[in-house]
Order: sequence, then C-alpha cells, then structure tokens
Amino acid sequence: MITIVLLGAGNVAKHLYEAFLPLNLVKVIQCYNRKGVQIHENQEGVFVTNNLNDLKEADVYILAISDDAVVEVSNKLPFQNRLVVHTSGSVPMKSMNSKNTRGVFYPLQTFSATKKVDFTTIPFCIEAEQEKHSALLETLASQLTKKIYAISSDQRNTLHVAAVFINNFTNHLFSIGSDICKEHNIPFEILHPLILETAKKAIEMNPDNAQTGPAIRNDVQTINRHLKILKDDSQKQLYNLLSQAIQTKYGKKL
Amino acid sequence: MITIVLLGAGNVAKHLYEAFLPLNLVKVIQCYNRKGVQIHENQEGVFVTNNLNDLKEADVYILAISDDAVVEVSNKLPFQNRLVVHTSGSVPMKSMNSKNTRGVFYPLQTFSATKKVDFTTIPFCIEAEQEKHSALLETLASQLTKKIYAISSDQRNTLHVAAVFINNFTNHLFSIGSDICKEHNIPFEILHPLILETAKKAIEMNPDNAQTGPAIRNDVQTINRHLKILKDDSQKQLYNLLSQAIQTKYGKKL
Repeated sequence: MITIVLLGAGNVAKHLYEAFLPLNLVKVIQCYNRKGVQIHENQEGVFVTNNLNDLKEADVYILAISDDAVVEVSNKLPFQNRLVVHTSGSVPMKSMNSKNTRGVFYPLQTFSATKKVDFTTIPFCIEAEQEKHSALLETLASQLTKKIYAISSDQRNTLHVAAVFINNFTNHLFSIGSDICKEHNIPFEILHPLILETAKKAIEMNPDNAQTGPAIRNDVQTINRHLKILKDDSQKQLYNLLSQAIQTKYGKKL
Repeated sequence: MITIVLLGAGNVAKHLYEAFLPLNLVKVIQCYNRKGVQIHENQEGVFVTNNLNDLKEADVYILAISDDAVVEVSNKLPFQNRLVVHTSGSVPMKSMNSKNTRGVFYPLQTFSATKKVDFTTIPFCIEAEQEKHSALLETLASQLTKKIYAISSDQRNTLHVAAVFINNFTNHLFSIGSDICKEHNIPFEILHPLILETAKKAIEMNPDNAQTGPAIRNDVQTINRHLKILKDDSQKQLYNLLSQAIQTKYGKKL
C-alpha cells in the first residue's frame, strides 16, 4: 500500500484523486488546499486541511498545484526527509526545497474540469533523487498507465516546449479555422473530421511524411489567393511565417 | 444507376474508385489518366484510356486531378452539355469550360496513398450549375457519407484556407514537436496522446474554450525560458508570433 497526501484543488489534483480512488494498492489519506475544500464528491474518511502543519505522515506528498506555487509550498512543508513530488511539466525537480527528498510525477496531458480522464492513455514522466523513489513512483504510475518514462528535468523542460507547439499553438490554428468559417457562414463541424485525421496521420506516419499543402508544393498562386482572402493581420502574418517555415524546412532537404 | 467516368490516377481518384466499387447504385464505367494505367487492382471490365477522345457517355465525369490540370482537361473534353465535376478544394466551378454543365464534388479530407479511407466520416462539399445536378451529386455523395454540404465556390475557397491552417500548418507544428524531441533524445511517442487529445478537445468544446498555455496566461517567465531552449530561428519566430497572436486574440476579449 502506497499512502499519499495530495496537495492542490485544480484539475490535475481532482483527476488524480479520482484515478487513485478505486485502487487497492494506493490510498490518498489526506488532501490539502488553501481553502480546505473537498475536491471530490467521494471524500468520506479522507481528511481535508488548509493547514500544512496538520499534514499526516505518508509515503509520498504530491504537489498538484500551480507551477508558481511549487517552490513556496515545498519550503513551507513542516517536515523533512520525506518524498515530495510535483506534477508540473516545467518546474525543475531541484528547485523544490532540499530538506525533503524530491521527485516528479508529471502526467503529460491537457486536463479540463469537465472532461473525464482516461489515465491508461496518459504518459507519466518520472524523476527522483533516489533510485528507490523512482521505483516507488513507477509502481504508483503503473497503477494508472503502461506509459511510464524516466525523464530528467532538462528533458521535461524541453518536452514542455514541444507540448506548447503541439497543444497550445495547434489549438490556436484550430481557432483561426473556426473564425474563418464563422466569418463566411460555414459550419465549423465540416472541418471536424479533418482535425481528427490530421492528428491521427501525424501519429501513424510521422509529421514530416504527412506534410502536404500549397507551401511544400511551392504553389505560389494558391498562397497568394489565400493571403487575399485573409482579412485579419495576425492570420496573414501566421500564414506567411508558417508557409516560409515549411519551405525552409523541406526546401533544405530537397 | 449513376454511371461515372473517373479521370485521374492520384490519391483522390484511387480512393473514390475503391469507395464506388461495392455500390449498386453507382458504376464507374471508365477511367482516364495520362498514362492509361490501372488505378485499382480490381478493374476488370472497366476500360482504362489515356485518350480523351475515347471517353464513353456517362451521367457524370469526375475530374479527380491536380488543381492545375482541371481547367485544361475541361477545355479538352470532346463533348458538351454533359455534367463535369472536379474534386478540388480551391478551383472555382466556373473556371471549367462552359461547354459542359459544371459542378463540384469535393471530399474535404486529407488523403494519403497508403491509408485506407472511411468515407462515412468525410464531409462532401457539393456545388452545381443546375438544381437537378445538385440533386444527382447529393445522391452520389449520399452513397458514401451522411455529411453533405451545399457550398459555393467562394465558400469552398475560404474553407480551403481554413483547411490549410487546420491541416498543413498544424502538421508543421507537430513536426516541430517531433524535431525538438529528436534533438533531446526524447521519444516522440510520448506526445502522441497529447496530439490526439488536442484534436478531440477542439472538436468537443470549440477551440476558443480549449485555449491554454503560457501565452494566454501571459506567463512571461515560462515564455522566456522556452525561447532560450529553442535554437532554431524559424521555431523561435513561430513561438513568438503564435504567442502574440494568442495574446492579441484573447487580450481583446478580456
């Protein structure tokens, strides 16, 4: 049995709590958040506190809190030599206070409040100062998923940049598609299958092999016609820069 | 029974041929391409020609050929007053020769040679000069999918721009993610679930509501750290411009 104190009341904390709930090998024995509120409807017998001095002894303390708060909370913990991990994609493990032994338990996925999470599909990036704690975190993650990766703080930092391109920036391109449709009274749903297929194709055949479109074909006529259609400056700039980027990348290879 | 002469030997022609093959209501009676080659292993009894003068009489001639070739081939057709449609996202219907009655039969999806296509998930954009031909094209499309949209040439042109953002440019962002991983010895597969979830989320909750990340949070510290990690100029420029675009878009709304 791995006992856990779970700190935080955001999406990651809530989804982790729910995922741990049915497990026999894992028990969340306490939750902490600043307001001392329940984070799940089924919290019978799991003490919630807003006082770090009340934290119980556990095998692992999971700081599922905002990036900015990780260091501060790690400083305020009123104990030492225990395993403290955070769930952040971008905070270096060693930025946490060294009075405790440190680790990272980072689920690489985008979470939202409303959408149920299937942890079996989510990769966990694990890091720990001590070998035995890597093993413990791996055991913990293995209760949720088969996708477990040993990732250093430097690698995780890099992964986070890649994730910004793949999630945040991609979503912005989707939103531009949606705006263009709205302006011209076209239902955006017509593009839904293309969104899904674009993702699937990049996974199945590697994005470099999946690249198509006027930019890689150097189809100047189509590019110019598209630029004329775009009224918004930001959309125009992005169309230009992304087309250039594609031409630079694949032009080099030709 | 709708009889078809299918022109072209690319991905769209091949996938359409395969999709029409099992249908009772539809029959491809002839294929044309410049080399006069078979486009499918099962072409028994379907005459293939490389001579436009040999084209048989059919209910509809589908030009599933490259955008650049559509006008030229429409000019060269040795008959008139028949229904000629193309499958292109960006060629205006009326750019085809007016000696025939014209239409568009545009499947809005990205096709590749190797990947099998499930047409039931693919939206068809339909346009025709005459009402009765719109109805015929709708009947034809309805054999393949329930997603049928009447879309004008102007709207289709606009849709094509949106599709470039959603497919071509998004795929380039995925390829940047892949490059970043490669440089730092991180398996790209770790980001596969995020790619899929990003697409699903944009479909389920509208991309504007799904936007997250350092740009929309105006998390300058993280943005600067990410810019330091990026070595490639093109990646840096895109990171900057996409972050600005997100801030401009959602800054306005706040």
